[in-house]
Amino acid sequence: MASKHLINSPSTLVIESLEGLCLLNPDLRLDKDARVLFRPFSSDSSQRVALICGGGSGHEPAHAAFVGKGLLTAAVSGSVFASPSGKQVRRAVELVHPQNLGSGSTEEGAGTLIIVKNYTGDVLNFGLAKEALGSYPAYANSVRFITVADDVAVPRSRITLVGRRGLAGTVLTYKIIGELAARGASLDEVEKVGQYVVENLASIGVATGHSHVPGTERGQDVLGDDEIEVGMGIHNEPGVLRLHGSSGLPPPLSEIMPRLVNLLTVSQDEDPERGWVSFAPSADVVLMVNNLGGLSPLELSAVSVEAIKAISDKGLKIKRVLCGTYMTSLNMPGFSLTLLKLPSAGQEPSQDLLLSLLDSPPEASGWGWVSGRAPVPLTDQIVSTPSSLSTSVSTTKTTSSNDPGARQVVEVIRRACNALIHVEPELTRMDTVAGDGDCGLTLKAGAEGVLSLIQSNEINGHDLPTTFIAIAGVAEDKMGGTSGGLYSIFFSALAQGLRSSSSTPEVNWPSALNHALTKLYTYTRARPPSRTLVDPLDAFVKGLSTEKADFYGSFEKAQEAARATRGMQAKAGRAVYGGGEEGEEEMDPGAWGVAILLKAIIGERS
Amino acid sequence: MASKHLINSPSTLVIESLEGLCLLNPDLRLDKDARVLFRPFSSDSSQRVALICGGGSGHEPAHAAFVGKGLLTAAVSGSVFASPSGKQVRRAVELVHPQNLGSGSTEEGAGTLIIVKNYTGDVLNFGLAKEALGSYPAYANSVRFITVADDVAVPRSRITLVGRRGLAGTVLTYKIIGELAARGASLDEVEKVGQYVVENLASIGVATGHSHVPGTERGQDVLGDDEIEVGMGIHNEPGVLRLHGSSGLPPPLSEIMPRLVNLLTVSQDEDPERGWVSFAPSADVVLMVNNLGGLSPLELSAVSVEAIKAISDKGLKIKRVLCGTYMTSLNMPGFSLTLLKLPSAGQEPSQDLLLSLLDSPPEASGWGWVSGRAPVPLTDQIVSTPSSLSTSVSTTKTTSSNDPGARQVVEVIRRACNALIHVEPELTRMDTVAGDGDCGLTLKAGAEGVLSLIQSNEINGHDLPTTFIAIAGVAEDKMGGTSGGLYSIFFSALAQGLRSSSSTPEVNWPSALNHALTKLYTYTRARPPSRTLVDPLDAFVKGLSTEKADFYGSFEKAQEAARATRGMQAKAGRAVYGGGEEGEEEMDPGAWGVAILLKAIIGERS
Repeated sequence: MASKHLINSPSTLVIESLEGLCLLNPDLRLDKDARVLFRPFSSDSSQRVALICGGGSGHEPAHAAFVGKGLLTAAVSGSVFASPSGKQVRRAVELVHPQNLGSGSTEEGAGTLIIVKNYTGDVLNFGLAKEALGSYPAYANSVRFITVADDVAVPRSRITLVGRRGLAGTVLTYKIIGELAARGASLDEVEKVGQYVVENLASIGVATGHSHVPGTERGQDVLGDDEIEVGMGIHNEPGVLRLHGSSGLPPPLSEIMPRLVNLLTVSQDEDPERGWVSFAPSADVVLMVNNLGGLSPLELSAVSVEAIKAISDKGLKIKRVLCGTYMTSLNMPGFSLTLLKLPSAGQEPSQDLLLSLLDSPPEASGWGWVSGRAPVPLTDQIVSTPSSLSTSVSTTKTTSSNDPGARQVVEVIRRACNALIHVEPELTRMDTVAGDGDCGLTLKAGAEGVLSLIQSNEINGHDLPTTFIAIAGVAEDKMGGTSGGLYSIFFSALAQGLRSSSSTPEVNWPSALNHALTKLYTYTRARPPSRTLVDPLDAFVKGLSTEKADFYGSFEKAQEAARATRGMQAKAGRAVYGGGEEGEEEMDPGAWGVAILLKAIIGERS
Repeated sequence: MASKHLINSPSTLVIESLEGLCLLNPDLRLDKDARVLFRPFSSDSSQRVALICGGGSGHEPAHAAFVGKGLLTAAVSGSVFASPSGKQVRRAVELVHPQNLGSGSTEEGAGTLIIVKNYTGDVLNFGLAKEALGSYPAYANSVRFITVADDVAVPRSRITLVGRRGLAGTVLTYKIIGELAARGASLDEVEKVGQYVVENLASIGVATGHSHVPGTERGQDVLGDDEIEVGMGIHNEPGVLRLHGSSGLPPPLSEIMPRLVNLLTVSQDEDPERGWVSFAPSADVVLMVNNLGGLSPLELSAVSVEAIKAISDKGLKIKRVLCGTYMTSLNMPGFSLTLLKLPSAGQEPSQDLLLSLLDSPPEASGWGWVSGRAPVPLTDQIVSTPSSLSTSVSTTKTTSSNDPGARQVVEVIRRACNALIHVEPELTRMDTVAGDGDCGLTLKAGAEGVLSLIQSNEINGHDLPTTFIAIAGVAEDKMGGTSGGLYSIFFSALAQGLRSSSSTPEVNWPSALNHALTKLYTYTRARPPSRTLVDPLDAFVKGLSTEKADFYGSFEKAQEAARATRGMQAKAGRAVYGGGEEGEEEMDPGAWGVAILLKAIIGERS
């Protein structure tokens, strides 16, 4: 649970956040006392049905960031996770109720539709507002309610009195009827379509932890490292079950997703506790994949792929996918899925109408671009034509060799790879303190790539230049990052260096290595002492060149150079930007990786 | 540091995330081996300059979610926080380079511009690609680079060799020139405008903690509870300074923001280590407020308000504000600010051109709606006309009274308020386990509201019905939530009950309280045992009615009813959705609040 916040004060946070939305859209207005953000009457809105949603704050962009043309007319905000008062809701209605535009007219105008999430506090306070407005002729018959209760997690038998919770399906509801209202539909029409939507929504949330309410005491993690909560509510309410993964990690998406989709789509016959929406086997649906606030966008996008797989496996036809941040629980690390069952052919409202309402771009800062098209099979979008550019390095598969020298080369390479794989946690730790944490994994990925080429006999040690070209290719393909590039250039140039000295029977290592280092120096400005992998590499190569070719002695110089990176101010590489006190207490992990590599290759002093 | 992830596996995450973007836009294509997401040639793109950006993954939506018409032509993705290889970059160019559309033509086409963030690995690998492409006539002279280095955090003297880091200004760069390319500008023009943008960008990040790379070991928090890091890099690289707050919390935004803005705008004369962009005192600027991934949208919006204050205090004129998630560090809890200095009158490219390029809506799933207008002073958007609806409760300010009875009433109310304020942490803890955590703060807010009315003499105990109507108003205004509504109805009805029995000199508490409870029951379906505040309230009121009016005995029954909520399955209220094992181990905090309130009012057994 992240319980640190970048705010002024919990008591001013909600108002400041609403002010921020004003800055993004000069057309909006804010009643600070009532915490109502709204779009005032204009030539295009005065005859339109006004749409209001509201509830506790902490679910942004829902609802205030969805105020704008084609979406909400007003949003009314309570404190974090607390319903707004009846008085606030009354004020919201007063500010946008269409007939108020006229000069004192009491005629019924287009009317106001209020979308309420089904929570006791919201239902109570919005209801209080409606009761109070009932005594004014201008409002008595033209303010209506729609309640969203799309959660499928909590069993039917436990909620007979209160009904289901409202989740992200709320946003789908007002997106669709917001556009309908913008097109000039009557209150009856808007209500009817809204009613269709809320009766055909199913949502479920899942999270790896709670969100933290600013201003409350620091909480404790309620879930273990390997646990996730299925059915987690948007106010940290517990869900319906907890799933455990293995190796201390949460279960993989491929295991979670079918269970979520089953909870969403199961029929009441199969599960008397659920089956809220009856999905025909090949029903058309809209899918919303919603970030509960704290999931990285990298993960969220991958979630949508797994969701679509599981939904398609049920036979449902996905007509639209929305994937983004729609209704959060502050920065809760999790997501929710919402399915909207679309009308079948001949049904009213028509599927075409609903999709056209959903696709229309509104003018609200919380809404992102959508393609307005159904997803196509992924295979149609994957390109498989090979590149017509020749690769910089090519590997030649030769027949297996019984040459004892070749077997020895392979053995040395294998040893070096295993050493890099073994040292990964140590390098990761060093790099996490001082850098970006990828050094250990990058080297491990390269080592594993080389081992797999040994396995497939593409590296067989038969010809040294070919071997190093293959390793350079792995460094480029599998490692990436700075070190991948540097290793790739170095091994590539080493191969060239060996080729140019191949006339002699003995391998001229000092000359070949020197050639490689010189080439490397045309691509990096790092020179020792630099707190990079260049330090030990330079020490090793120069050691071999200046003295009698003593491998072990040169390795010792390299190891010394790597160790000397501890306490050194970085001059090149990403570590430059670090260089805090902590960073300098550790050796540079890239440099230490070179030392480990050389040690594995050279072994003990002979 | 949140080190739990909802993924299948770290090794498949990047590809799955790219596949997810395909599902949102059927026009995109993906080369999985090269991890290149791109928009293939179409009738409108074949003669356009192709725009490519790339780098390590983990910064989504940058860059892949910005591929689309009017933005990027292709994005090339490395592993998390690791540069893509040169080979990947070459493939990206091959897939989108304009003249490849022709049938084997080697004529120079519109060309390709590559935007590179200034990190050693990216510069190296993108450079390798450029070197390799240089040997093909079709690419030799029509592939160009622009490097973004907008960070202002790290001091000049420390980065003489490597230059500044690239941050979220990268996205502003390709938004502007992406639209320019879409309009058919030449490679020279696109490069020239891009060069203007990168030379006039200044960015800085701030975070309360690190992000965690999936697949690496669980890290430790590097920052204390009260610490934030100014200048934090997007790969967790340390920043330039740490700020400490007080009371174990990070410093408020109002303290952080002027320092950030100073780092962004300081001149080199004032600070030889910075002053990268020279901002004239009243220069026009674009402001981007960027979520580093893990900040709640509620907070991010409030951040923009404080940023605009600090920037305006410097005299700069803000022409556009973008506030959203553009370039993350996975789910890092923090934000970055980017300022783009716009051209002054007569300068080329013109300010009008830049703003029109920035405002045009592109077709990319990562891009949200923007108003395309400058923010106006907030005061212009704040509504201050009072409501024309009468409020449900009104407070009457009377002159101070020396009536000892009135003073006693005020004393009792004050005692009750203080008791609720005192018990807040305990209620919050109970509610965090079982509910949504707001119960304690809600009651505290109500109590503080009542105390402030006592302070201003609006509550003076002179007339009991007036007093309770005032309290009902506070409950509605200041508490919100379910309990605010319930308390408001109860006190309001209690006032009515007292008024109707005011003919007798003695207050008929049992009758008045019974009236209030009956009214309350028309608004909530909760009946004891319900695990809500109704349980002790009902016990107290019924206790007073059925026995001889023994206040203390009735309080004891109420306290017993509150305690009995421990281990009880919730039947009404939000706790219904909880009800996990943990929830039931605690009393219901709303019920316990009533017991605390009654105890403070009634005191010891008399």
